[in-house]
Amino acid sequence: MEKAPRCAFVIFGMSGDLSARKLIPALYALHCDGSLNDETSIVGYARSEYSDKQLRDKLKKALKEYSSSFDESKWASFAPRISYVQGAYDKAEDYKALKAHLEELGQENHVFYTATPPGAYQGIVSCLAEAGLNESQNGWTRLVVEKPFGNDLESAKALNTHVLKQFSEDQVYRIDHYLAKETAQNLAALRFANTLFEPIWSNRYIDHVQITMAEPMGVEGRGSFYEDAGVIRDVMQNHLLQLVALIATEPPTQYDAISVRDEKVKVFRAMECVHPKDAVMGQYTRGGDAKGYREEDGVDRNSRQATFAAVEFRIHNWRWEGVPFYVRSGKRMTQKASEIVLRFKRPPHIPFKLNTPLKADRLVLRLVPNEGISLRFNAKEPGQGADMKRVSMNFSYDQEFNRPNPDAYETLLLDVMMGDATLFMRADEVEAQWRVVQPLLEWWENSDEKPAFYEAGSWGPKEADSLLGKNGRYWHHPGNGKK
Amino acid sequence: MEKAPRCAFVIFGMSGDLSARKLIPALYALHCDGSLNDETSIVGYARSEYSDKQLRDKLKKALKEYSSSFDESKWASFAPRISYVQGAYDKAEDYKALKAHLEELGQENHVFYTATPPGAYQGIVSCLAEAGLNESQNGWTRLVVEKPFGNDLESAKALNTHVLKQFSEDQVYRIDHYLAKETAQNLAALRFANTLFEPIWSNRYIDHVQITMAEPMGVEGRGSFYEDAGVIRDVMQNHLLQLVALIATEPPTQYDAISVRDEKVKVFRAMECVHPKDAVMGQYTRGGDAKGYREEDGVDRNSRQATFAAVEFRIHNWRWEGVPFYVRSGKRMTQKASEIVLRFKRPPHIPFKLNTPLKADRLVLRLVPNEGISLRFNAKEPGQGADMKRVSMNFSYDQEFNRPNPDAYETLLLDVMMGDATLFMRADEVEAQWRVVQPLLEWWENSDEKPAFYEAGSWGPKEADSLLGKNGRYWHHPGNGKK
Repeated sequence: MEKAPRCAFVIFGMSGDLSARKLIPALYALHCDGSLNDETSIVGYARSEYSDKQLRDKLKKALKEYSSSFDESKWASFAPRISYVQGAYDKAEDYKALKAHLEELGQENHVFYTATPPGAYQGIVSCLAEAGLNESQNGWTRLVVEKPFGNDLESAKALNTHVLKQFSEDQVYRIDHYLAKETAQNLAALRFANTLFEPIWSNRYIDHVQITMAEPMGVEGRGSFYEDAGVIRDVMQNHLLQLVALIATEPPTQYDAISVRDEKVKVFRAMECVHPKDAVMGQYTRGGDAKGYREEDGVDRNSRQATFAAVEFRIHNWRWEGVPFYVRSGKRMTQKASEIVLRFKRPPHIPFKLNTPLKADRLVLRLVPNEGISLRFNAKEPGQGADMKRVSMNFSYDQEFNRPNPDAYETLLLDVMMGDATLFMRADEVEAQWRVVQPLLEWWENSDEKPAFYEAGSWGPKEADSLLGKNGRYWHHPGNGKK
Repeated sequence: MEKAPRCAFVIFGMSGDLSARKLIPALYALHCDGSLNDETSIVGYARSEYSDKQLRDKLKKALKEYSSSFDESKWASFAPRISYVQGAYDKAEDYKALKAHLEELGQENHVFYTATPPGAYQGIVSCLAEAGLNESQNGWTRLVVEKPFGNDLESAKALNTHVLKQFSEDQVYRIDHYLAKETAQNLAALRFANTLFEPIWSNRYIDHVQITMAEPMGVEGRGSFYEDAGVIRDVMQNHLLQLVALIATEPPTQYDAISVRDEKVKVFRAMECVHPKDAVMGQYTRGGDAKGYREEDGVDRNSRQATFAAVEFRIHNWRWEGVPFYVRSGKRMTQKASEIVLRFKRPPHIPFKLNTPLKADRLVLRLVPNEGISLRFNAKEPGQGADMKRVSMNFSYDQEFNRPNPDAYETLLLDVMMGDATLFMRADEVEAQWRVVQPLLEWWENSDEKPAFYEAGSWGPKEADSLLGKNGRYWHHPGNGKK
């Protein structure tokens, strides 16, 4: 087990939801498995008033709720790491207390984590700098910026400019927790630790790629947030474009922060900005017991905000020219499912006399549910003749590995403390991602077209089928890898 | 269901073992599934004396023993097809009765099947010709020649010359029942009905190929036969070289008798004749409850005959140059297993920092037991770091298809009646196969080297391990596809 160097792990917004649900459970898990340095401190910073004890009690309660393995004696050794500093995010004055507290703790390595609303990021960065906390005399300083990183291309650029005035790029860890999912990482292993797949990973053999990220939930009380965000900002610009990049990158020289991110940026730069004609923007209506989007709390009764999008992306390079990447995501869909489908071309020549047309092979990379891989290919039906039937081979992560996948935040927080930025987004990467979807955002926000409505609990609007159907293609129905 | 044209199906050696175990059960199965023409007759020919009724009774008994689905009412409709002609195989005079009988049956399409000892083949061919039965005025005539086809290159050439004086090549069906096994046919489907596999099917990605055909039985009372044959003639020259060809062929233009056999012949012609240094000839000794080969009935007490061989074959063409095909087969081995392993090269560049060396991918094509396909590849271990573990995807024929595979003879006899020679060996093909093993046979028969002894019940002699081991390779342990 790797053990991270000691540091003070400072969480801005310690009283918030992200800390309670994700950050503290992740740090606690790292503590339990021995990868958190014994002398690492956890420092909370927020506007609310807490004593250390009050904060610890609150976090203990959260841990019991959100950690899968709460243990009283482990908590007893974990709790003393936690201390608290009260302050406003944008008052430089308050950061003096933070600085004094860190000195008192004797910590020279600092992680600053913005678990606050995004509006607070700029103030935090300014105040850290003003307090001289953007660098450390005898150690290192790292800044973790939560998503969303900007609200569009312009604001992302502005935020980058602001951050990079006070921090150097290699200090900045822009998080997209989706990247640390095991299957996303396993994609790199599948492609680059095997000889089998990479040779067929190109426009010579692949007809198109599909990525589906379906969510049965609605906006769940976050109506007013969602009115501002919409599906493009919520998942398409970040998670889904990252998946596109993981499928599409060239092999990196090393699996490290420089090579991996260089290659991803190359993909985003090779991507065409989305044309409105290549996108379907949808919105769910009442279905079953579920309310329609416009009936949700905090949502305008005439809202045009998209809760679903299906987009055809194009990558202009030698490997992918002519291979569309169809990406869709929506709320209130039939089931929870995230998967990537590589649909192969049919063989260039089929020597058999067949009674039914041959189906094309496909490789399915499932992220949720039942993480794993399926291969669908043709086998001969037993008996006379040469009729083919499509059959499956399946690999399931759960069945193969006994230990559960660590939570993405566990992986990422450890990476920050270890100084490995491979799974975090670089400034140029974030901007390149915004560039791709910017025309789509602008078109949608300035148009008065109606969304393509779909019933809650369905697979999205029929217009999304037409997006593929016009080329004789169709969406693959996500499954769980079982038959 | 295809129905074959009507014909008289004449079996020379009707009183023998092959008829009872394989031919009659196969014809009966074709009768039951409706693919045997209602007006097709089955004519037995042999030296023994039988009335039609006696022969039918004998065959009914055999069917009950060897058919998986004997049914009294089906038999009642099958039995009247069978009639009998008594005669010597090499007396032209006796064939007049056969000819008269066929005329009496009103059959103008004739299949002649040599289910006799190979010594009778030439006589049968001569006598058929002398009786004018090598062609039919108003129909077709086909000659099925059982294996072995010759005893070495010279005798195979002589037999071809003799047969082709009286029959044209397209009338001749040289049988190797191994070719009709579903998995062998499925190999063609796997390679040519899918896009996934063919691009990686070459020396660019494959390190080497292994073929294992292991048999737990000894010579089982066929000692004196085996003394003449040995493992090279018994299975290597025919079954195993055919498997090599199925793996190695270029894609055929059509999956028909001309293209498929043209491509196989090209493989055999591209193969280097075997050097003695690339072969290990083994013989089993006593082990467990099993006798050693030299203790078997009919076997010389100092016999050098090989009951095991491991051979490195080389194919000199663009696709396979530098990829050895290691082929081994033996009697009295640990378990019954036939499988083909494609061992891939490691990726040309591995970007990950790994604590243990990466294993190479492999594709396993199982023929026996549990016909199917397994893919072994690397996946990332859950958790920190990038360690890889080799995992499996598996496809099992039995699990996928409900109906059982038809017996090879069922497929082949129907093909003969349909006039499809794809799965039968052509004259040039048989000779090309003999050519490859001829130097090995000659060396072994003229040498006085001792066989490499191995204990009955083992995986063969240790010398067979060295054959691969000198290049850092090793035999994969056959499995059943389960873990």
